[in-house]
Amino acid sequence: MIYHRLIQIEFNHCDPAGIVFYPRYFEMTNSVVENFFADVLDCSFARMMEERGGVPTARIEVNFHAPSRLGEKVDFALEITRIGSTSVGFRIVAAAGGIDRLTADLTLVNVDIEGVPQRWSPAVRRRMSDFAERPEP
Amino acid sequence: MIYHRLIQIEFNHCDPAGIVFYPRYFEMTNSVVENFFADVLDCSFARMMEERGGVPTARIEVNFHAPSRLGEKVDFALEITRIGSTSVGFRIVAAAGGIDRLTADLTLVNVDIEGVPQRWSPAVRRRMSDFAERPEP
Amino acid sequence: MIYHRLIQIEFNHCDPAGIVFYPRYFEMTNSVVENFFADVLDCSFARMMEERGGVPTARIEVNFHAPSRLGEKVDFALEITRIGSTSVGFRIVAAAGGIDRLTADLTLVNVDIEGVPQRWSPAVRRRMSDFAERPEP
Amino acid sequence: MIYHRLIQIEFNHCDPAGIVFYPRYFEMTNSVVENFFADVLDCSFARMMEERGGVPTARIEVNFHAPSRLGEKVDFALEITRIGSTSVGFRIVAAAGGIDRLTADLTLVNVDIEGVPQRWSPAVRRRMSDFAERPEP
Repeated sequence: MIYHRLIQIEFNHCDPAGIVFYPRYFEMTNSVVENFFADVLDCSFARMMEERGGVPTARIEVNFHAPSRLGEKVDFALEITRIGSTSVGFRIVAAAGGIDRLTADLTLVNVDIEGVPQRWSPAVRRRMSDFAERPEP
Repeated sequence: MIYHRLIQIEFNHCDPAGIVFYPRYFEMTNSVVENFFADVLDCSFARMMEERGGVPTARIEVNFHAPSRLGEKVDFALEITRIGSTSVGFRIVAAAGGIDRLTADLTLVNVDIEGVPQRWSPAVRRRMSDFAERPEP
Repeated sequence: MIYHRLIQIEFNHCDPAGIVFYPRYFEMTNSVVENFFADVLDCSFARMMEERGGVPTARIEVNFHAPSRLGEKVDFALEITRIGSTSVGFRIVAAAGGIDRLTADLTLVNVDIEGVPQRWSPAVRRRMSDFAERPEP
Repeated sequence: MIYHRLIQIEFNHCDPAGIVFYPRYFEMTNSVVENFFADVLDCSFARMMEERGGVPTARIEVNFHAPSRLGEKVDFALEITRIGSTSVGFRIVAAAGGIDRLTADLTLVNVDIEGVPQRWSPAVRRRMSDFAERPEP
């Protein structure tokens, strides 16, 4: 399946060239991942903080295809590309008006408070598998 | 009348103390103002940019009452406190769970590309007055 | 005395109008305060975090006098305006090329991990007084 | 040769886990690139804006090796990995205390106001080559 989240491009995101400043895109990809964890995996970042763990990004690769402009509403579509024992791979494609803006491939690692990789809990892992395998409606 | 906008506190907004880092609140107040201009005054920041004008903030005063935490959904309520010939005053109160988080008083000025104050267009001024005078339903 | 810190305006700070986006100024005032605490009060934010305390901003009032542009080096000048038992008042004036950009008045409160106001340690309080009373060379 | 820039990790950069929030690293890599263009290529972003051009990032790949913490001073070391007719490749390695924090590979494209790739000016291209070929002292 694919998880969608619509993000409106606001003044805050734009640079003097009038387009999204690329570091802001990473705030957006992080927001998409954060909401995916809460909405789909039932595992909010707030709860992870309380339980002294987290899912830092270990690797990210982004290709920027076209700029995004003030006022646009950009769809961020996330799919799972790989489920590891302590990690997960996501691909996020952002698009608006039929034009892709970026493709991001991320690897996140499940860690404890010391930053040591931890196996996913069975519940989280099962929800990931379910989501990855469920066909689009 | 009062214009409301709900903002979810995400990882991006929080500091090492686990609460909203106060400069992020100004991104939020700016977003509220930006959406108010588009939604209520029919005058988006994107269109202002095209028409070579803008509404920079000339003054802001904020009292922080209580911290906001990751995962909270905070209501930002904006009302017009003053309509000048080239400026406008807003009060924004942010609250969640019945607890006020901040009160912000802002003065914005309508300027041209050189930063020179300009009178509001009659249409924008009328929409401001209508909004300010309309009673809450 | 007055504490100075020079901040170069970079792409990151600027909005589509090509001037500093005002929420970025608050990242700058926070940075100035943070460096003042480390450099003058010998009380870094990192150490405060370890000791489970902090100095959140309770109130801020800013008047924006003139915009700042990409590439400018802006001097932020901080002075102490008030020393309370659990709080401190700062005035920060930012200027470049002989033109003031903003004047900010801030009140910070010394708190413990629960957010409860705490008296300043005698050492910090003495350093504040010394700084406030020392004449400019 | 290698271009170095030291960036101090401030409160602004850190997340609730007390480490640098990864989107902030991209503000840092952008700042390093921006200063490299001004200092080494004599081609500031401010001047590019005036001349209606820019050097957007087309691709970025980052591996995060270890977290960075509040108060650390991180060295960002940039080298040129490829000089194309309209593009340039950079590798940035950030490290502190002998421990690498991240390795970033970026591709930037020289564009005009419409976003169309443009050949580098001979002067900029020559400065790039000189820098790339000059041995470390």
